[in-house]
Amino acid sequence: MGKNIVSKIIESNLVFGEASVGSEISIRVHQTLTQDSTGTMTYLQLEAMGVENIQTELSVAYVDHNTLQTGFENADDHEFIKTAAAKYGIIFSKPGNGICHQLHLERFAKPGQVLIGSDSHTPTCGGLGMLSIGAGGLDVAVAMAKGYYYLKVPKVMNIELIGSLQPWVSAKDVILYILKRLSVKGGVGFILEYSGEGIQHLSVTDRATIANMGAELGATSSIFPSDEVTKNFLAKQGRGQDYVPLYADQDAFYDEKIQVNLSEISPMCALPHSPDHVKAIDEVDEIKIDQVAIGSCTNSSYTDLMKVAKILEGKKVHPEVSLVIAPGSSSILKMLSDNGALGILIDAGARILEAACGPCIGMGQAPKSKAVSLRTFNRNFEGRCGTKDASVYLVSPETAACSAIAGVLKDPGSCGDHPVVEIPERYHISKHYFIYPPKERKDLKVFMGPNIKPFPVNYPLKSVLAGKVLLKIGDNVTTDDIVPSHAGLLPYRSNIPELSKYCFGTIAKDFHNIAKENNGGFIIGGENYGQGSSREHAALVPLYLGIKAILAKSFARIHKANLINAGILPLTFVHKDDYLLLDLLDDLRLLIHPDGLDSQKNILLYNDTKDITIPLQFTGSERDAAILKAGGYLNYAKQSNHDHKVGDTNV
Amino acid sequence: MGKNIVSKIIESNLVFGEASVGSEISIRVHQTLTQDSTGTMTYLQLEAMGVENIQTELSVAYVDHNTLQTGFENADDHEFIKTAAAKYGIIFSKPGNGICHQLHLERFAKPGQVLIGSDSHTPTCGGLGMLSIGAGGLDVAVAMAKGYYYLKVPKVMNIELIGSLQPWVSAKDVILYILKRLSVKGGVGFILEYSGEGIQHLSVTDRATIANMGAELGATSSIFPSDEVTKNFLAKQGRGQDYVPLYADQDAFYDEKIQVNLSEISPMCALPHSPDHVKAIDEVDEIKIDQVAIGSCTNSSYTDLMKVAKILEGKKVHPEVSLVIAPGSSSILKMLSDNGALGILIDAGARILEAACGPCIGMGQAPKSKAVSLRTFNRNFEGRCGTKDASVYLVSPETAACSAIAGVLKDPGSCGDHPVVEIPERYHISKHYFIYPPKERKDLKVFMGPNIKPFPVNYPLKSVLAGKVLLKIGDNVTTDDIVPSHAGLLPYRSNIPELSKYCFGTIAKDFHNIAKENNGGFIIGGENYGQGSSREHAALVPLYLGIKAILAKSFARIHKANLINAGILPLTFVHKDDYLLLDLLDDLRLLIHPDGLDSQKNILLYNDTKDITIPLQFTGSERDAAILKAGGYLNYAKQSNHDHKVGDTNV
Repeated sequence: MGKNIVSKIIESNLVFGEASVGSEISIRVHQTLTQDSTGTMTYLQLEAMGVENIQTELSVAYVDHNTLQTGFENADDHEFIKTAAAKYGIIFSKPGNGICHQLHLERFAKPGQVLIGSDSHTPTCGGLGMLSIGAGGLDVAVAMAKGYYYLKVPKVMNIELIGSLQPWVSAKDVILYILKRLSVKGGVGFILEYSGEGIQHLSVTDRATIANMGAELGATSSIFPSDEVTKNFLAKQGRGQDYVPLYADQDAFYDEKIQVNLSEISPMCALPHSPDHVKAIDEVDEIKIDQVAIGSCTNSSYTDLMKVAKILEGKKVHPEVSLVIAPGSSSILKMLSDNGALGILIDAGARILEAACGPCIGMGQAPKSKAVSLRTFNRNFEGRCGTKDASVYLVSPETAACSAIAGVLKDPGSCGDHPVVEIPERYHISKHYFIYPPKERKDLKVFMGPNIKPFPVNYPLKSVLAGKVLLKIGDNVTTDDIVPSHAGLLPYRSNIPELSKYCFGTIAKDFHNIAKENNGGFIIGGENYGQGSSREHAALVPLYLGIKAILAKSFARIHKANLINAGILPLTFVHKDDYLLLDLLDDLRLLIHPDGLDSQKNILLYNDTKDITIPLQFTGSERDAAILKAGGYLNYAKQSNHDHKVGDTNV
Repeated sequence: MGKNIVSKIIESNLVFGEASVGSEISIRVHQTLTQDSTGTMTYLQLEAMGVENIQTELSVAYVDHNTLQTGFENADDHEFIKTAAAKYGIIFSKPGNGICHQLHLERFAKPGQVLIGSDSHTPTCGGLGMLSIGAGGLDVAVAMAKGYYYLKVPKVMNIELIGSLQPWVSAKDVILYILKRLSVKGGVGFILEYSGEGIQHLSVTDRATIANMGAELGATSSIFPSDEVTKNFLAKQGRGQDYVPLYADQDAFYDEKIQVNLSEISPMCALPHSPDHVKAIDEVDEIKIDQVAIGSCTNSSYTDLMKVAKILEGKKVHPEVSLVIAPGSSSILKMLSDNGALGILIDAGARILEAACGPCIGMGQAPKSKAVSLRTFNRNFEGRCGTKDASVYLVSPETAACSAIAGVLKDPGSCGDHPVVEIPERYHISKHYFIYPPKERKDLKVFMGPNIKPFPVNYPLKSVLAGKVLLKIGDNVTTDDIVPSHAGLLPYRSNIPELSKYCFGTIAKDFHNIAKENNGGFIIGGENYGQGSSREHAALVPLYLGIKAILAKSFARIHKANLINAGILPLTFVHKDDYLLLDLLDDLRLLIHPDGLDSQKNILLYNDTKDITIPLQFTGSERDAAILKAGGYLNYAKQSNHDHKVGDTNV
């Protein structure tokens, strides 16, 4: 049986393991990207790993998220990322250049290669035949440091596109249609691989729109073949040499297959508050709209915005509507400006925002109370737009533009002639927002503004861990309990010491002080300790406060992995009732076998205050034990002799 | 002796009083403008006055300040202003249209007329021969309601411009030079009237730059003649019919005169942290810069930005510099886009922001910690840019552009050929951001989002005011003590009930609750009660909480006026030591004579708790007394029979 595109890329870049579904492998990473919201932590981690040169072919640090800069923190983060990029040999993309995924597609993405990015919409570059996966900041730091990435081989679902799109129907409608069919869980555990005659009619940026919102299906990634359309796009971007053809074999194996008939799709919209709450627009009652927002990594390409300009030409934005447009890149903005399209948008009464993520991530343009906002973006979760009681509908650029004129959600079919956009002979290439790293980098200093603090370090596991019980809590403690997250604390993502002041603040106001006074210690937890978000901070803050181990009845899966990465022992009671034998401020001693942790043998805990012994268990893989022994993943990753040992698992 | 331009405009628009320096007059107001930051309160006041039709020829409500919209509050304010504008017959300028002063200059300003605006840079339109004065929100509300404005006739200072500007020197350098000569207090009590051969070479927007920063001199306004240059500008804006010539008489009288030789001025900069801390750039040591910001109501005209584009053509923004450009209006943005200048700016690596005030008012683009930021704006107060330890230098657009390339503060003379900008045959006119009020407005509803609360109302003065002492405080209480002002409270400027929760919060945490429980009452103050800012909220919040009178040793001037406007009695002790006879929660009764307040007669206060009588004094004008009798200025203004009585004074 033949191979699909995903298998071909994985097999030709396999570093360790066996490329069969579910098995843990590591693959070579050619490129990485970060954005500024996750990037500060990534580069702090890279620094903590003591890296001198990155191992990827190319890594890019974009600034596209926190571009409003309402305080010094954002600009400090930008400067930190810029100087870290210079030091480690990474290309820096200045704010104003545009959105990471659009820029990466334009300038760097290569068919057949592997991209790991610290942003969930990294799969956008799958539109160009690149295997592009969104990952945590630490994974991206390791990918830069080592040049590879650990993952469990996902299943591959083939989505065959047949037929061709009707006028006024575009890529966004296709992915909304697929979201309707598969739901936001439909892609979990899969990479989605597109094929079929229908893709011939989809441009690279159309394909990127579809690949982009694979993230909303829960898919690990999405990918399209690299074909003549790809070749053409790369040539027009001045990168003809980056083209390689890439197709699935005729008889390729797929774990699942579905077929989508493009000609049956009509203009769609995702109703509040989920991207899979999709209906055809003609099934939705007419609804008055207050805001229309066009842009984001999903729909801000040259073609998307040219269609909008053609629709708005000679027309007027409805007086009751605020139309905001944020182009995907500075190059697109320049092309629109030079060919008169921007003038048309302004003439119609649109608000032109900087090329950045902007309103898609709630970074400005929060609509009014109870507003209806039409957006060409990828997510319409409740409150994400910044206004809790607003209703966000996800639509195509065509639907957005026609509706902005009408003042109501409108099937664009009723809007006159379907706009046809010619792809230009050459795309413009803005050069001056990219800063390339210098050759001589040894003496470069990384700028750390007052809000950026170094990543907390840990040390190899000691044979005896001694300390007091600093906190005893019940079941189902969340990562929000451990490290609260709200607008007031967001600027401190790069400042673990500041964040630590709020650790367990909602449960035990004094926790920070008690931990400081006692120079760290132990936390006693109940069932399902650490449920909730995947945020690394819920492990890094306790690490900073000197927490040596969490002794709990059971752990939430992702938080347990984060604790191991941080080098904090996640231990469970052999007898759950022993939870009752531990009290606040008891003096504890934990004895670790000189060979390290072993899931087969119990670990003994001495409660010196009560003079009793409690057996504990470590339930993790050999690799987990090795990471803990090293004092966390950063230390482990520094020890290259650990690489690719049998028993390695994905973190 | 002949008349100057100011006298001509005042005399021909005099409604009440005598046009001699220092005397109180009211003058006809032809136009008003508001921006969104002060506008919500202004329209709440207009609403509280029960106005049906405004009395100005033209009033415009701009949205240019709070355009980032990081929460629903901004968009709610915009919607409130938009619907209030429609109801009262006011033109609404949508966000994205640009900065109020630039737009007003382009579209509405008329030589010889009077403009009152709720923004300190309203005098910008003086560049076009319009008498334009910045005023408080209530003054603008009254100007709309009544069609006139009260002021004390200021002195007039003639600034004669002789000679002509050297290459690379422009209007911004002229006003910085004047600031150096006169200081930030040099214009206090004056209107500055420009004349001389030198003004022939200054375009209307150059003149507007100079008039704009008269605000930094402390001047009441600045004004230029209306001449051929003005005629030409108006014609190119499609408003040739609005031109009237306006010159001072040859032998015009001026209270003061200075002469400025334009040919002696070199490129200037205002050093941190004051607009009058001015030096010639060649006197300043080379300094590395981190940010350059071009725009604001001072320097965002077509000509300004074209000069910047010419300087940046084929050049690259220095990698260490973030260059942000915010055009003054959508029309300018369109012209720059259509003629290729915007493409040049993007190609050089500039960040293009929405046409709005933006970074000038600290609305985004806060630079990094300890940054040096060069700005074409009007103010460089410490912290105003959003970064407390940043150093802001004020410069011309030419200096800004040349320095952005060099990465250091640069005398633009070293930058090659001086850019020459042709003023276009016709300025573009963006129409679709303006919403004109409908003819039928009776049934229109004003939108009040959950954060916008009605203006607190007061009632005619009663003969007996009874209540408890709710607070007793010492000397020099500030308006910041009364109503704290910080970023967290700024979104509540239109929400007096919410603000009231913080009233005296830094001095007496429980004040809000005590006031609520006791249904209002009295405050006992020491010397200089209410010093500090001019904010109206420091009177409106106590009004909302039911404060009937403040009994103090003495009052700060502006706060006293605000208390009178709110209808709260500001009374002083006849014997200062009587301050000692009042304590927290004492029961008081204040007896008011049926005819009202009289500064000649004492008012008796009965302290029922201590069974003593204390004489108090009212020190205000007859008009003040009439305002208090009516229950505040809004009620007073509703009573048209009070208009233009002898004894009227400026409020």
